[in-house]
Amino acid sequence: VAIETILWKGGVLQIIDQTLLPETCRHIELSDAAAVWEAIKSLRVRGAPAIGICAAYGVLVGVRERQPATQQAFLSALAESADYLATSRPTAVNLFWALDRMKCAGLEAAAELDPAARFARLEREAVALHEEDRQLCRAIGKHGAGLIREGDGVLTHCNAGGLATSAYGTALAVMYAAQEQGRRFRVFADETRPLLQGARLTAWELREAGIDVTLICDNVAAQVMKEGRIQLVVVGADRIAANGDTANKIGTYGVAVLAHAHGIPFYVAAPYSTFDPSLPDGAAIPIELRDAEEVTRGFGRNTAPDGIAVYNPAFDVTPAELIAGIVTEQGVLRAPFGESIGGMCRGEGGVL
Amino acid sequence: VAIETILWKGGVLQIIDQTLLPETCRHIELSDAAAVWEAIKSLRVRGAPAIGICAAYGVLVGVRERQPATQQAFLSALAESADYLATSRPTAVNLFWALDRMKCAGLEAAAELDPAARFARLEREAVALHEEDRQLCRAIGKHGAGLIREGDGVLTHCNAGGLATSAYGTALAVMYAAQEQGRRFRVFADETRPLLQGARLTAWELREAGIDVTLICDNVAAQVMKEGRIQLVVVGADRIAANGDTANKIGTYGVAVLAHAHGIPFYVAAPYSTFDPSLPDGAAIPIELRDAEEVTRGFGRNTAPDGIAVYNPAFDVTPAELIAGIVTEQGVLRAPFGESIGGMCRGEGGVL
Repeated sequence: VAIETILWKGGVLQIIDQTLLPETCRHIELSDAAAVWEAIKSLRVRGAPAIGICAAYGVLVGVRERQPATQQAFLSALAESADYLATSRPTAVNLFWALDRMKCAGLEAAAELDPAARFARLEREAVALHEEDRQLCRAIGKHGAGLIREGDGVLTHCNAGGLATSAYGTALAVMYAAQEQGRRFRVFADETRPLLQGARLTAWELREAGIDVTLICDNVAAQVMKEGRIQLVVVGADRIAANGDTANKIGTYGVAVLAHAHGIPFYVAAPYSTFDPSLPDGAAIPIELRDAEEVTRGFGRNTAPDGIAVYNPAFDVTPAELIAGIVTEQGVLRAPFGESIGGMCRGEGGVL
Repeated sequence: VAIETILWKGGVLQIIDQTLLPETCRHIELSDAAAVWEAIKSLRVRGAPAIGICAAYGVLVGVRERQPATQQAFLSALAESADYLATSRPTAVNLFWALDRMKCAGLEAAAELDPAARFARLEREAVALHEEDRQLCRAIGKHGAGLIREGDGVLTHCNAGGLATSAYGTALAVMYAAQEQGRRFRVFADETRPLLQGARLTAWELREAGIDVTLICDNVAAQVMKEGRIQLVVVGADRIAANGDTANKIGTYGVAVLAHAHGIPFYVAAPYSTFDPSLPDGAAIPIELRDAEEVTRGFGRNTAPDGIAVYNPAFDVTPAELIAGIVTEQGVLRAPFGESIGGMCRGEGGVL
């Protein structure tokens, strides 16, 4: 998978502007923190891990913009940039995790007397976080690949692919790894209203990778399950609470209920940075509400009456009891998730 | 509700072109059977009862086009027009029911010696069928109104409103009648991909009627149920088998599964012409598959990769066991539906 969702080269930050896909695959430059904030807010870059990586580079760009000469100025620039970027989107915890990592790295970097050395040290952290994500995705794929058997039908919702991460993805990493192991299977991609990440991104990405993919409207998911065409569901996550309750793109909860009703196992795939053990359960996860216009004029043309009331939450929370397993870089977590997640967060390993 | 979905005046057939809604509410003239066929096929007129009415007038227009001088020519023109219109859409049984009624009326009309008298008799049947639908819709509303209590949240899918019938609707008739009885409630309208009948038609129609309506993407239905905001679901139907299995717009089955999982009663509203007692169950209902382009470029802009595989069934079948009741013009049918539907079809009444 050759997609470079996020690029940092010679001090220049570039991202694929995902709002232009699938018609145009173009990298745009984000030259200041405001541009990074806007890119995250308007979903030019999206997907919990990718948001985290982009925000880490955003801190870099924000600090550089302020040209801090002193250590104090450096720390202020760091805090301001991170706090500002934290306001871009509320649900994905990877955003806050990445910003925290940059702040901690910045505290160490501040020890350097030379401004260039301080910046270089901060830059190393962002690059390390970016590279680490590649490894996490590969490991998730490796651990999850066995879930997909020859001839299976796999349903996914939204895009938890290379475009949602550094490369390779989380839910789609499982598919890419199963493909590398030589298995053939068919993916049904929910188009994922209102912003059609499934149609625009997942269908595009899987086809580019040579995986058999069929696009369906969100409301066809129940029907393909009923027809016996789905053997498992795999989705990504934006935040996972200590008990396993999982926030992901709106519609995921419904898919999980439908999978349960049809006896189909429902899996979540996510790296450790998506877990938020500070939250006991999903009730405490903040859910972003987005503009009505995403629903009423998302296709260019007005598709609903002007000024109509719209309820447009960007995410929902799937209760842990509907989740068969959580595929992480350390293995597949199983119920009871309170224990398996606790064990992983404490570094006890052995989760497979 | 002043919407005139279908008009027949001075021998001119007009329909609201529903593909232009909500931006433009315009009547277009259908001057020959081919225009009627195209209008049904491309959903300028849609909704099982409205398709039936339009097809009845289509037979009239088709017979007139052929200017049959003899009784034999009249019967041929009748059969040809009806057979042709029957190929427009396969799922809604009201279409075939209306065509059968016109054929039977035509057999009687053929007894007239004067061509104008033959035509006038056929015309009376179409007009009667049209007027009858108004009465059916009012009666459905009356019988179903009590299902909606003060303060309820009601979810509906697609459009089973005035635009789907002569006026007033089936599922929406229940809401209009509850409103007339002075109750306040909130409707959540699924937008209903791919053709957005919920967003374009239901939201528009309910707002015009002064009913509190909130538009949601299809994949938000599970979430509003989980939030406790839905007390009942009411939808229309395209065909109901002898055991109560109900074909309706794609996505209805999923809504029914979700309602069941949340303990929310799920109702179907439909007149007798939607029942097909010749089919023992839903497995025998033919499901129309429609073009990929409805999904990939439905609203102007390309929203999926060119040539991507798409599965786009127009309908699905909800099993009777997920249905709390079927609101008909004779009352609310309850399980066991085999008996209550059989009783209604045999004219035994007493279904309330």
